[in-house]
Amino acid sequence: MIITFEGIEGSGKSTQINRFKEALEKKQIDFICLREPGGTLLSEEIRNVLLNKDFEISSLAELFLFEASRCELVKKVISPAIRENKLVIIDRFTDSTIAYQGYGRGIPLKIINFMNNLATEGISIDRTYLLDAPVNLLEERNKNKIKDRIEREDGDFHKRIRDGFLKIARKNKERILKINALLNEDEIHQIILSDFLKIYGRKSTTR
Amino acid sequence: MIITFEGIEGSGKSTQINRFKEALEKKQIDFICLREPGGTLLSEEIRNVLLNKDFEISSLAELFLFEASRCELVKKVISPAIRENKLVIIDRFTDSTIAYQGYGRGIPLKIINFMNNLATEGISIDRTYLLDAPVNLLEERNKNKIKDRIEREDGDFHKRIRDGFLKIARKNKERILKINALLNEDEIHQIILSDFLKIYGRKSTTR
Repeated sequence: MIITFEGIEGSGKSTQINRFKEALEKKQIDFICLREPGGTLLSEEIRNVLLNKDFEISSLAELFLFEASRCELVKKVISPAIRENKLVIIDRFTDSTIAYQGYGRGIPLKIINFMNNLATEGISIDRTYLLDAPVNLLEERNKNKIKDRIEREDGDFHKRIRDGFLKIARKNKERILKINALLNEDEIHQIILSDFLKIYGRKSTTR
Repeated sequence: MIITFEGIEGSGKSTQINRFKEALEKKQIDFICLREPGGTLLSEEIRNVLLNKDFEISSLAELFLFEASRCELVKKVISPAIRENKLVIIDRFTDSTIAYQGYGRGIPLKIINFMNNLATEGISIDRTYLLDAPVNLLEERNKNKIKDRIEREDGDFHKRIRDGFLKIARKNKERILKINALLNEDEIHQIILSDFLKIYGRKSTTR
């Protein structure tokens, strides 16, 4: 079973993933938690290349590198975990590529979908939690935070990405649960956990 | 103008490229000579990743990495050189990806062609010199040479690649000049140089 968390910068994704992991540990549900790019020797090396500020990387090369990292992670970590019936939690996955490289940087979605499908070998995500709120309200909330390279991109870039996520959510209503990121932390955690337990229970009974 | 050299390991490609470059220098023809992966900061970094023997890289990740390196090289080196009317010589290019990752490793050609087209932004090769000979005869000729990681792959792998190159040559008769790699060095050099000068003269007159 694969669960992904998506959302723009500052939407509270990391906080919610940590709360979710704590809850799973209490319930003794076995899981692995991953984030891209990374998770294999090669993918960590690619991570270093992608985060190195000395390189000015074209959008397309960025996409190829993300997909190289992704197909290694799928082949060597995600697929084996699924075969062992483990729960896989991923902090950003294919939807982020569509939102950032597609809606954000302007690479045609057809190209991105083609590469995402290749790299993921047809595995499918069971549930995606999308933390959503208007860019300016999240910026207001996070104004004292120190920003990294991507977070520093201008507001327009982030607006395109938010709109992108909303479009992806509309196209994948069954899979994506959109949650108001301005609700308080506990409330969001409860929404995610109860939704997850419902799906997890159903999956466990089917098995 | 873009000229590429292709062929299996041991076909004498490097020798011929060196002879070709010397001849161009004598004729004071301005050129740049490139080989993949490499040629930009990012591409050199990718080269290090691809050649690192500690990584066991899946075929698909290998393809994505080559294409990431290629699109950077095209964008930052090849396209600018072409705009300045420079001659660009490349030691292996898109045909090698089709031969090695496609015919050699078994990735569908449709996928490889799609990615090659993306990464090269539609630039086209003017002439390709394919040095060809049966694998066993080249192996016989090179039996005292120390072999690197790819050269060590088994004979079947190299036979698939040779057959791949021959198929590519049949599909691109206008662009690819197939040359018998068992001819002597001088003879091959003369074939390449006189063919090149004919095309180059035609191009220069047209301009």
